[in-house]
Amino acid sequence: MGHDILMLGVDAGGTSTRAVLTTGEGECIGYGVGGRGNPIAVGPDRAADGVLDAIALALAPSARTLAEVEVVTAAMAGQRAEDGEGGWLADRLAAEGFSGRLTFESDLMATYASGSVEPFGYAIVAGTGASAVRVAGGRIDATADGLGWLLGDRGSGFWIGHRVARAVVRDLDHAGPATVLTRGVLEHLGIVEDATRREGRSRTLEQLVETLYAMRPIELAALAPLAFVAGDPVAESILRRAGEHLADSLAAVLAGPGPLVVGGSVLFRPTPVRDAFLHRLGAAAAGLELIPVIDGAVGAGLLAVRAGGARVSSETFARLSETLSRFR
Amino acid sequence: MGHDILMLGVDAGGTSTRAVLTTGEGECIGYGVGGRGNPIAVGPDRAADGVLDAIALALAPSARTLAEVEVVTAAMAGQRAEDGEGGWLADRLAAEGFSGRLTFESDLMATYASGSVEPFGYAIVAGTGASAVRVAGGRIDATADGLGWLLGDRGSGFWIGHRVARAVVRDLDHAGPATVLTRGVLEHLGIVEDATRREGRSRTLEQLVETLYAMRPIELAALAPLAFVAGDPVAESILRRAGEHLADSLAAVLAGPGPLVVGGSVLFRPTPVRDAFLHRLGAAAAGLELIPVIDGAVGAGLLAVRAGGARVSSETFARLSETLSRFR
Repeated sequence: MGHDILMLGVDAGGTSTRAVLTTGEGECIGYGVGGRGNPIAVGPDRAADGVLDAIALALAPSARTLAEVEVVTAAMAGQRAEDGEGGWLADRLAAEGFSGRLTFESDLMATYASGSVEPFGYAIVAGTGASAVRVAGGRIDATADGLGWLLGDRGSGFWIGHRVARAVVRDLDHAGPATVLTRGVLEHLGIVEDATRREGRSRTLEQLVETLYAMRPIELAALAPLAFVAGDPVAESILRRAGEHLADSLAAVLAGPGPLVVGGSVLFRPTPVRDAFLHRLGAAAAGLELIPVIDGAVGAGLLAVRAGGARVSSETFARLSETLSRFR
Repeated sequence: MGHDILMLGVDAGGTSTRAVLTTGEGECIGYGVGGRGNPIAVGPDRAADGVLDAIALALAPSARTLAEVEVVTAAMAGQRAEDGEGGWLADRLAAEGFSGRLTFESDLMATYASGSVEPFGYAIVAGTGASAVRVAGGRIDATADGLGWLLGDRGSGFWIGHRVARAVVRDLDHAGPATVLTRGVLEHLGIVEDATRREGRSRTLEQLVETLYAMRPIELAALAPLAFVAGDPVAESILRRAGEHLADSLAAVLAGPGPLVVGGSVLFRPTPVRDAFLHRLGAAAAGLELIPVIDGAVGAGLLAVRAGGARVSSETFARLSETLSRFR
């Protein structure tokens, strides 16, 4: 296989970056994981480090070099080659000897391609953020939400964590129901309860508010797992509402039956979120085949194969899935 | 009056700081306005500048000096002398010759004291943030909300502006009803409509999202005024919900009839917010005497008089209100 055309698919996410080295037939010959690879999140230098680290690890097993790679396809949120946004990565790749083509794809498209080769279908990702897309003719042709923590991402890990924080603050402020989330959040944040009151407000609440404002807002997503283990009505209500929001986002792009590739931790397992999600979709849920995927690595590899001009069949999909699994 | 005991009341808000120079009888002999004076918002150096500038202007008409002032009472959010939090201001005052006593009060208490000398009553402030307090025995003994933009401040200017932004994003994302707020927000932010679509999403929406994330979240409060002039169902619904949230915050501290001093622009005038606020309070509203105040300057002056050991009667209140009004 030493003279095969080589492609690199890169799946750059919020917490890590995966690189898949593949032949045009979907034979994975290397896989690597690097740090965060999205320049919007961590700046161009750190993002390029994350991508290049993952690529170096993917090239290592076969001792190939970037000079031998025809196509690098980077799947990530918010980057589009046609806008000339990719210079931060193109320059670094060129410095490492890459003289092929660099293409960008949406992270949602990589998620979809990780679960289905059907030209028509849907993907929903609910991790720290939340977004749903419709794929038609192998391209995204409708997008819902994915508007970030301040304006949208309804039903996401941030959304759940934010609701958890607000429920606890309201419990401690006697403005909402008591919830076991309160103990969970205080423990998680290392706050010792202190009932001393000042102007009718406990020192515990003051400390919690100070601690939460000292965090970056997006870090509230770290409180989301507490909702899944709490098992009380306040937590269940947050989870159900999250599922309904995710269903509404999907419903906004639904146009008939198809595969529904599910990425991100929030909808991955059967939980009250997924129950509420399916319940809210109602009859439409029957036309959807739920396909959970752990990340967009397979899809990024297949999108790279496609960008290299090769045909992506269900055999290509099966081969890449199987050969990639040997590396992780 | 040259040998009177002098007190300085300082009302430090989110956008400016007011200083009131008064005698123990409530005779205002100087008034000044400086920049932002809260160290949590702008850091200790700029905050001290804001306070000292206001004080210098207040001393100027009578040519008095800080060395002649017995008490400085600074009313601001989140500062308490008993925590030793006031060093940033005490040091600067001392450097200007002040050798009297520095005391801190809640900004909510200054609002209350600007409208009422009754020992029992309520204050609600709905400006950029939102908070309600109960006053008993001349001190705050219960507080609701005031938990900041990320965790609370329900019904505040930020809350309204955030809802406006989200309504417009959802309109442009075809995930919510059309609203005239969309045109208002795009104009306000200088975004020219561009119907070019990518992945089913308009360039207008992309530009709006980029613009909003480039702002500090709290700056969304600047969109709140658009809701008051829109006059469409989406805007009215936001305003009504804001009024209900403010009523719920007040209800959390209500314990019988009393004066209700109202600060901040959101509830100042009769609008759908205030209508919904009163409607939600229901029968309890009949026991409340609404007293709108433009800021906490009168209250800060009276709190300084009280801190100086003088009695604050309704005559003191009337005298300070009247004499201060000559300066502004």
